[in-house]
Amino acid sequence: MTRTPRPGLNATEVCRRYIEVIRMSTSTECLIVGAGLSGLVAARQLLRAGRSVQVFEARSRPGGRMHGRRLDSGAWIDLGGQWVGPSQDRILALLDEYQVARFPSPAHGSTVLLFEGRRCEFRGFFQGFPEGEAPGVTAEEWQDAMTAWARFTALSSALEPGYPQPHPRNVELDSRTFADWINENTQTPFGHWYFSYMARAVGVLGPAEPGQISLLHVVYGQRVAPQAEHPEADLIHEGAGQIPHLICAELGHRVHLGQPVQRIEQTDEGVTVETAQGRHPGRYAIVALPPPWAGRITFEPTLPAARDQVQQRMSMGTCAKIMVAYGRPFWRDRGLAGLGIGNQPWIELCADCSDPHRSQGILAGFIVGDRYQRWARLKSAARRDAVLADLAAYFGAEALIPESYDEADWPHEPWVGGAFSAYMPPGVWTSYGAALTQPVGRIHWAGTEIAARWPGFFDGAVRSGEAAATEVLRRIESDLRRPP
Amino acid sequence: MTRTPRPGLNATEVCRRYIEVIRMSTSTECLIVGAGLSGLVAARQLLRAGRSVQVFEARSRPGGRMHGRRLDSGAWIDLGGQWVGPSQDRILALLDEYQVARFPSPAHGSTVLLFEGRRCEFRGFFQGFPEGEAPGVTAEEWQDAMTAWARFTALSSALEPGYPQPHPRNVELDSRTFADWINENTQTPFGHWYFSYMARAVGVLGPAEPGQISLLHVVYGQRVAPQAEHPEADLIHEGAGQIPHLICAELGHRVHLGQPVQRIEQTDEGVTVETAQGRHPGRYAIVALPPPWAGRITFEPTLPAARDQVQQRMSMGTCAKIMVAYGRPFWRDRGLAGLGIGNQPWIELCADCSDPHRSQGILAGFIVGDRYQRWARLKSAARRDAVLADLAAYFGAEALIPESYDEADWPHEPWVGGAFSAYMPPGVWTSYGAALTQPVGRIHWAGTEIAARWPGFFDGAVRSGEAAATEVLRRIESDLRRPP
Repeated sequence: MTRTPRPGLNATEVCRRYIEVIRMSTSTECLIVGAGLSGLVAARQLLRAGRSVQVFEARSRPGGRMHGRRLDSGAWIDLGGQWVGPSQDRILALLDEYQVARFPSPAHGSTVLLFEGRRCEFRGFFQGFPEGEAPGVTAEEWQDAMTAWARFTALSSALEPGYPQPHPRNVELDSRTFADWINENTQTPFGHWYFSYMARAVGVLGPAEPGQISLLHVVYGQRVAPQAEHPEADLIHEGAGQIPHLICAELGHRVHLGQPVQRIEQTDEGVTVETAQGRHPGRYAIVALPPPWAGRITFEPTLPAARDQVQQRMSMGTCAKIMVAYGRPFWRDRGLAGLGIGNQPWIELCADCSDPHRSQGILAGFIVGDRYQRWARLKSAARRDAVLADLAAYFGAEALIPESYDEADWPHEPWVGGAFSAYMPPGVWTSYGAALTQPVGRIHWAGTEIAARWPGFFDGAVRSGEAAATEVLRRIESDLRRPP
Repeated sequence: MTRTPRPGLNATEVCRRYIEVIRMSTSTECLIVGAGLSGLVAARQLLRAGRSVQVFEARSRPGGRMHGRRLDSGAWIDLGGQWVGPSQDRILALLDEYQVARFPSPAHGSTVLLFEGRRCEFRGFFQGFPEGEAPGVTAEEWQDAMTAWARFTALSSALEPGYPQPHPRNVELDSRTFADWINENTQTPFGHWYFSYMARAVGVLGPAEPGQISLLHVVYGQRVAPQAEHPEADLIHEGAGQIPHLICAELGHRVHLGQPVQRIEQTDEGVTVETAQGRHPGRYAIVALPPPWAGRITFEPTLPAARDQVQQRMSMGTCAKIMVAYGRPFWRDRGLAGLGIGNQPWIELCADCSDPHRSQGILAGFIVGDRYQRWARLKSAARRDAVLADLAAYFGAEALIPESYDEADWPHEPWVGGAFSAYMPPGVWTSYGAALTQPVGRIHWAGTEIAARWPGFFDGAVRSGEAAATEVLRRIESDLRRPP
């Protein structure tokens, strides 16, 4: 029996379909856009399940915001993310699998708080969630922050599980900025700063100025990525930046660096990913980029409006990370933990990340939001002086003479455009949020931003990569069960 | 005397520079990205000044959001913008120059207001700015809206001239959403809706849901694009959509359609604009796209962080425009102006735009924000039924039987992604606004969004195109005066 064209198909259409069938029989089962942590994890999972994958990465290196370098001293520093916490079980499993060892974040001694010219040392910490001793601010100031904190956690506890849904209570939270809530719920400058600094320090919040983030996004972040679970408990020997390379070693020639994806076409039968170097046919695609970067790709056919619009509405946080290395962790001599927080001109948060296996003392500092904007306008030497002056204010004049000084200027980084992660301004979760995770035909989405747990952290990247790979695997297997 | 390479230049560098000089001597003086109204106006002005220009447009037609079609009846409808007002002198001058005639927006009769099941007809109108008779709501409701309106206009009057600057008063306005201000300043559901509908109707505001826009942006919009100056006073015989073609006729072969610009490189000597079809060298470039679309181009070197981040943070409004034509303007029989406003399920605002030279009656309706999201999920027939049911609620059952029905689904339109214009969520003007107009090396910016007057309207597009062309002309002339 010969198969004849169905009525209504002309010769051109028949040819087109045969070509499509041939093309697809030789095509990759899953094309992955982005070799950041989520894309690499997705690729690895598909490959281990016996599926063919190709990964396309714009940059000349894998890892995205998971990236570091080796200092002359031999020590590793992470220029991107670096911390992990005990409840982040997906990234911990990945580290264990590659036998990458961790160490507790150094916290031997007191935290320094600098607030409006006042300095205090205390055995505690806060970044939203408060722990240990209270800092040496007035009782009224601390009470103000803690009263507001209780209200804030109550808001968070009242959220339903899962992604924020567009019901009236959430729409109300989503139509306000975090700044607005702070103004309403704090009475003292300290109370006000306590929460503003939180907006500029916590990963899932961009970070951003509190006037730029949806209150709902902050409250949601507190529920799915709570500081109370200590996401900065541990650090990684030889740096988190080694992980992408370990995964790439397993993926081998399937990772294509320096190939920005310009265009993704899809038909009922498959997808084609196009870079300047060529067109790559596949059955499915996983776009493992922050949503605003997915938005820079041209899709054919055009994405559903809600998907395009959610990509337009999310933006990368405004944050530079500074890594400063000293001959030794000199702050410990005076009983300091190397943890500094305060409304300083530049560095509102810094932390000790010295590896106990090495003698150097290493501090990580963050310059966020409007502070970043002012800092980015300075010349190179002035930027360094500004950072070191703030570190000296926290820990003493030895901070002025580092062995090395590294700036990770993420907002100015090609193919990244900001850090830690993309966040939601007001009104986006409840009007466009549903489009964030929903596949579009054969295109699935990954990336820490869309993780259901620990968005904005490594763990969220692993989870979302695994979730996307599981979904695509399910579809490939379902295709194979279908009669030809 | 022979010129020798400066010390420190190796042979490769010398070659590179000579090649650069040769390349630039044959290059276009200004490359323009985008053949929307602002890009075309800029190109025209440069060409008339004797400068060489090339315009690259992604779509197969010019005009962007200035676009229409001819109905079978012979009448033109505008699927994009259509209105102009008496103080919009730059677009009026353009229309006059091309001898394109206008007619007053039809307003013979009463406006219909539908609010929570109540219907009233009144000789007045409001879209923020109230005029004529008050509608038939209760005195308390109207008073509520008018009291808040007085407070709103006071906020606007207090703004300094020019783009919003990042001083504390503006930062405060910019850290709130318009929804937040509405909740604080209105007591009745009508008062609340009066301003929410304004957010979803006025061009410069996206349009967007009030919970998505910065209060500062709304207040600023009221000052630089005030409804009190009647920006919808006049309509254009044969449609605004003819204008891009009239300008293109003058530009001729210099307009390249179907050539999306993927990449823009610049050196000290010039710029290169790259499309899939080729690389085009030039001395200057004007990127005449909405900022979120400029953000989809790859720039080499990377744009300054503040510029990249402002592009990430603006997004296109969520609005579909529906054009419905009837055998005659039947609403006039019952004394109605064809103006309908109300908290209907889909069409919150519709207006008569029937050309007095023709017999057909034509209504323009808008579906905005969350209404759009619900509507976009419907199937084609249900979308039409939904729109016509709302029109019938305003003007009677004759609305159910149109001669033609056109949807301009702007959020789903390739290379547009929304309408009327890109807007500012909270915290963007005061943290990133300065980067919006500032040239980056040889790259200048245009587009209605960045106009100092009438942003979001045709007039803003003309103004910003003219401003960019004037700046580039000044630079070209200054280059020519420099010794070689």
